[in-house]
Amino acid sequence: MQRIAIDMDEVIADFIPKHLHVFNRDYNENLTVNDLTGTRLRELRPQFLREINAYVDDPLFFRDLAVMQDSQEVMQQLSERFEIFITTAAMEVPASFTAKYEWLKEHFPFLDEMNFVFCGDKSIIHADYLIDDHARHFERFKGKGILFTAPHNLNETGYVRVNNWLDVRDYFLR
Amino acid sequence: MQRIAIDMDEVIADFIPKHLHVFNRDYNENLTVNDLTGTRLRELRPQFLREINAYVDDPLFFRDLAVMQDSQEVMQQLSERFEIFITTAAMEVPASFTAKYEWLKEHFPFLDEMNFVFCGDKSIIHADYLIDDHARHFERFKGKGILFTAPHNLNETGYVRVNNWLDVRDYFLR
Repeated sequence: MQRIAIDMDEVIADFIPKHLHVFNRDYNENLTVNDLTGTRLRELRPQFLREINAYVDDPLFFRDLAVMQDSQEVMQQLSERFEIFITTAAMEVPASFTAKYEWLKEHFPFLDEMNFVFCGDKSIIHADYLIDDHARHFERFKGKGILFTAPHNLNETGYVRVNNWLDVRDYFLR
Repeated sequence: MQRIAIDMDEVIADFIPKHLHVFNRDYNENLTVNDLTGTRLRELRPQFLREINAYVDDPLFFRDLAVMQDSQEVMQQLSERFEIFITTAAMEVPASFTAKYEWLKEHFPFLDEMNFVFCGDKSIIHADYLIDDHARHFERFKGKGILFTAPHNLNETGYVRVNNWLDVRDYFLR
């Protein structure tokens, strides 16, 4: 059975709307996802770099992220034909461990927690496919990288791209 | 550069003495490591299975484990010639995430936390070697399994065995 490794933030967990929401609230701004095309919040507002990064150090930040549209249904279908692992660079945000674990158990109860991986350098992942929004994780990955579209990676070329979970379904199950 | 994945409990973190200490204290016993030869505490005292397992659900249980003798010095030497990843089945004990992370940062400060992996099923690990006290992790691992001696695995055959960290040094650096 082939194995698909799947990232969390901006792939199954909708990170950006919450990050923008707390930033807009605290700094009286009205930034939208469109403002992040080809960039990131910390690049758009470098004067608030420290504050922007600090949001994710809140142990609860990741606990109530929205689930990416169609990800639950499609992953349920994928899990009947593929071995599914969740592979998230949680070591970049150690405060997030518990929230990420609980979030996965809540929203993807059909997955086995023995298939959750909290790592940093994803070259350690042994899988046939890796669905991720960060192309840098594909550089030393031995399987096939599949780029999940996010505002910051719109200018990235050279990888199979999926724009949403219906694209993921079509790629693996058509 | 070849990559070595290294387990935590009973390989670099001395799990058993603390587990025995709290059990002996609470149940007025005097069990020693020798009593665990070829077995485990939960098999030796099945009537206390729930209590024995509950100790590790304390978020601080793993925070003050002793470091296995010679592991720091040898791993420091190994890290000059090999890529080192720490791969622990932390998903079996979700309460341990933070303690394990802090313990690693305290006792192995020369390791990059991007090389820490909290997982469950270690077949996800892509490495040339895996040093572990549980032979079951070698079954689907694609690299070479190296069994680190622990009381519970003394009867295990069929794998390269190292009895301590000086053996690890001799195996990789002689």
